[in-house]
Amino acid sequence: MVYTDIANRTYNHNWRLDPIVRSLLDTDFYKLLMLQMIRHLYPEVQATFKLINRTQSVRLAEVIDEGELRAQLDHARSVRFGKKELIWLAGNSFYGERQMFSPDFIAWLADFRLPDYDLRKVDGQYELCFHGPWTHSSMWEIPALAIINELRSRAAMKGRGRFELDVLYARAKAKLWEKVERLAQLPDLVISDFGTRRRHGFLWQRWCVEALKERLGRRFIGSSNVLLAMDADLEAIGTNAHELPMVLAALAEGDEGLAAVPYRVLEDWRNHYAGNLLVVLPDAFGTAAFLRHAPDWVADWTGFRPDSAPPIEAGERIIRWWREKGRDPRSKLLIFSDGMDVDSIEATYRHFAGRVRMSFGWGTNLTNDFRGCAPFATTGLDPISLVCKVVEANGRPAVKLSDNPAKATGEPEEIARYLQVFGGEGRLEKEVEV
Amino acid sequence: MVYTDIANRTYNHNWRLDPIVRSLLDTDFYKLLMLQMIRHLYPEVQATFKLINRTQSVRLAEVIDEGELRAQLDHARSVRFGKKELIWLAGNSFYGERQMFSPDFIAWLADFRLPDYDLRKVDGQYELCFHGPWTHSSMWEIPALAIINELRSRAAMKGRGRFELDVLYARAKAKLWEKVERLAQLPDLVISDFGTRRRHGFLWQRWCVEALKERLGRRFIGSSNVLLAMDADLEAIGTNAHELPMVLAALAEGDEGLAAVPYRVLEDWRNHYAGNLLVVLPDAFGTAAFLRHAPDWVADWTGFRPDSAPPIEAGERIIRWWREKGRDPRSKLLIFSDGMDVDSIEATYRHFAGRVRMSFGWGTNLTNDFRGCAPFATTGLDPISLVCKVVEANGRPAVKLSDNPAKATGEPEEIARYLQVFGGEGRLEKEVEV
Repeated sequence: MVYTDIANRTYNHNWRLDPIVRSLLDTDFYKLLMLQMIRHLYPEVQATFKLINRTQSVRLAEVIDEGELRAQLDHARSVRFGKKELIWLAGNSFYGERQMFSPDFIAWLADFRLPDYDLRKVDGQYELCFHGPWTHSSMWEIPALAIINELRSRAAMKGRGRFELDVLYARAKAKLWEKVERLAQLPDLVISDFGTRRRHGFLWQRWCVEALKERLGRRFIGSSNVLLAMDADLEAIGTNAHELPMVLAALAEGDEGLAAVPYRVLEDWRNHYAGNLLVVLPDAFGTAAFLRHAPDWVADWTGFRPDSAPPIEAGERIIRWWREKGRDPRSKLLIFSDGMDVDSIEATYRHFAGRVRMSFGWGTNLTNDFRGCAPFATTGLDPISLVCKVVEANGRPAVKLSDNPAKATGEPEEIARYLQVFGGEGRLEKEVEV
Repeated sequence: MVYTDIANRTYNHNWRLDPIVRSLLDTDFYKLLMLQMIRHLYPEVQATFKLINRTQSVRLAEVIDEGELRAQLDHARSVRFGKKELIWLAGNSFYGERQMFSPDFIAWLADFRLPDYDLRKVDGQYELCFHGPWTHSSMWEIPALAIINELRSRAAMKGRGRFELDVLYARAKAKLWEKVERLAQLPDLVISDFGTRRRHGFLWQRWCVEALKERLGRRFIGSSNVLLAMDADLEAIGTNAHELPMVLAALAEGDEGLAAVPYRVLEDWRNHYAGNLLVVLPDAFGTAAFLRHAPDWVADWTGFRPDSAPPIEAGERIIRWWREKGRDPRSKLLIFSDGMDVDSIEATYRHFAGRVRMSFGWGTNLTNDFRGCAPFATTGLDPISLVCKVVEANGRPAVKLSDNPAKATGEPEEIARYLQVFGGEGRLEKEVEV
């Protein structure tokens, strides 16, 4: 006998859309940590975030229907933090800390909604901008990226047969499991999911996270995705991002003020968080410059997250610096999260084993590696390098230099000024794959 | 919101077992074709069928729980042909023929049920016998094999994690699809599913059949499984099996009577069926002997199904024989179904292309190839060579010689007598894998 739940099926008939973002917790944890600080220190700053597709060969506006995109963005704007979600944020411990979010901040979140967006097509691409208070425009970063990436996946799979799709996911699961089996060979691995922004789709990310939880056990410490962390009883993982130094740099007065920003950001941060959250993101304006001018107290922080240099080289440089500062690297933490995959995780793990504590943030190559999996011809499932960056604060242009010039953002004249202030030492052009 | 159909879930709580055989159509089509003839010509013959595990290294009675086995066999005995199923058998065309099954036979099926069974454990194996009228004991062959194979699969997967199982099936799907993609390169392929008896499980067989239907289109001509053929609107495929000459041989009087059996069986068959059903199964007592003594009219039949010799060698022998008889092999059909997999299908297809019509019956390596797929250590999912053979008719022992002595069945003295009557010419020992 075939049993069908008629009411449920009928309800499904009437879906207006299959929403991609269904919760405001479906974002990266660092957004919430940063948000609390931004709201506290910079509530009046206006900031504009903008979608940047580094993979220009993929003409997103020809792949993704504008009506669908608007419907998904509009739906995300209709979502609010749920009561249960706020209770969890208030009551959960993060990195062993209770009450990481103040009652005042939680109360403020209850009324939060994503601000409006500006969308237009320019030369086969979407120009998608979010204006408004920094506290609001910032929160679009992850949902906007997740929406565009998932709509692109959906477009690549539209009209495909049921078994082709089944085989696609079967292969993707088999492929991921091969990776996980290799990771399972590393006894002291510490790894987490950082793949929300570039994911193939929400349901696929959830599969990946739950599969890692089952197979890697305690070595899989959690997910940057707050919703998945909550649902799967995992740690929410993350610290801070480039937008903090970028906005403060945009607002800084004069070259001297600009030069001080990378350390002022850390002071702001230290006034809000402690312990495992004291992780330095050194590369916004170049790691070499950052380390050369860093005050001694920076070496007291728990760790570094090098985000745009080759991991072994970047790690060695930071270890050398800790030693110069008289610190024992074995008590320090390096977090590797820039385009990592199993090969680079294995190599980095083996290289630094016993010399420093390590943690890996596995992103795009965890949640969106369908290369070779489609039983039909398509490039529409290959990940692209899509980011959503702050481009302006209080009307002044924002810049990121990065250790990799291919990841730099900002207007050319401003980039030139920043390079003069920070120097271009140690920057190395490297193809950005994901 | 999580939506659960409470009534359905509650119903599921109360399952006594998850039945393996849920329909009497979940059997091979040739059983029904043979049954109609057996009922017509030999309604009084008593026959015993017996389970034979050629893979003695797998101790089935230590793997499969006896209580579960009895529950499944008992459940199969409770199943009747459904009204819709009988209407379909009566109204459907098979191989382009209307009314293949007589109204009288259909009416008789309405009351059919599987007879009782004898089950005991002997030295780590199950001794499982079916006694009764040939018309009834014969019908146990496929459900008994399907039940034991599926219970063995279930035992191998018991207690495994949700993601381990998901990866297992993901890999199996990916593996099958690689095979199907290779087959899709053969433009004139004619292939069908022959995998019921050795399947991993019913749901997996259904997946395989539907996947082949989607990907191979008209080159996938159907399934030997009558239920799946009905449900998926495919052709039911099959002709006849060794039990016909085996029973008649057991009943034959004297060596001369025995020697005539292979041809008398064909005369019986020809009186019941025509066209594509006129397929000779030549190897019950050795193909060489069969061909040497075959009357000319055998060469008028549509085709041969060599079932225990290497396919190319067997095909060449039959083509040679057709030529000797003055027939054009290009109008004739060879059906290959003995342990075929993609390598042997490709090789056979290429070897005979343009010289003869070919059709492939893909069995165990279609519906039960999980080798290398489990993300946990097990040999419990490797297929075994399990058959259910007639061993006795009206109290007299039955024998099969086969072209491969490893596939012979029967008591040693009787085998010796048969070898004297038919000769052992051209028989070649070859490991039986599936």
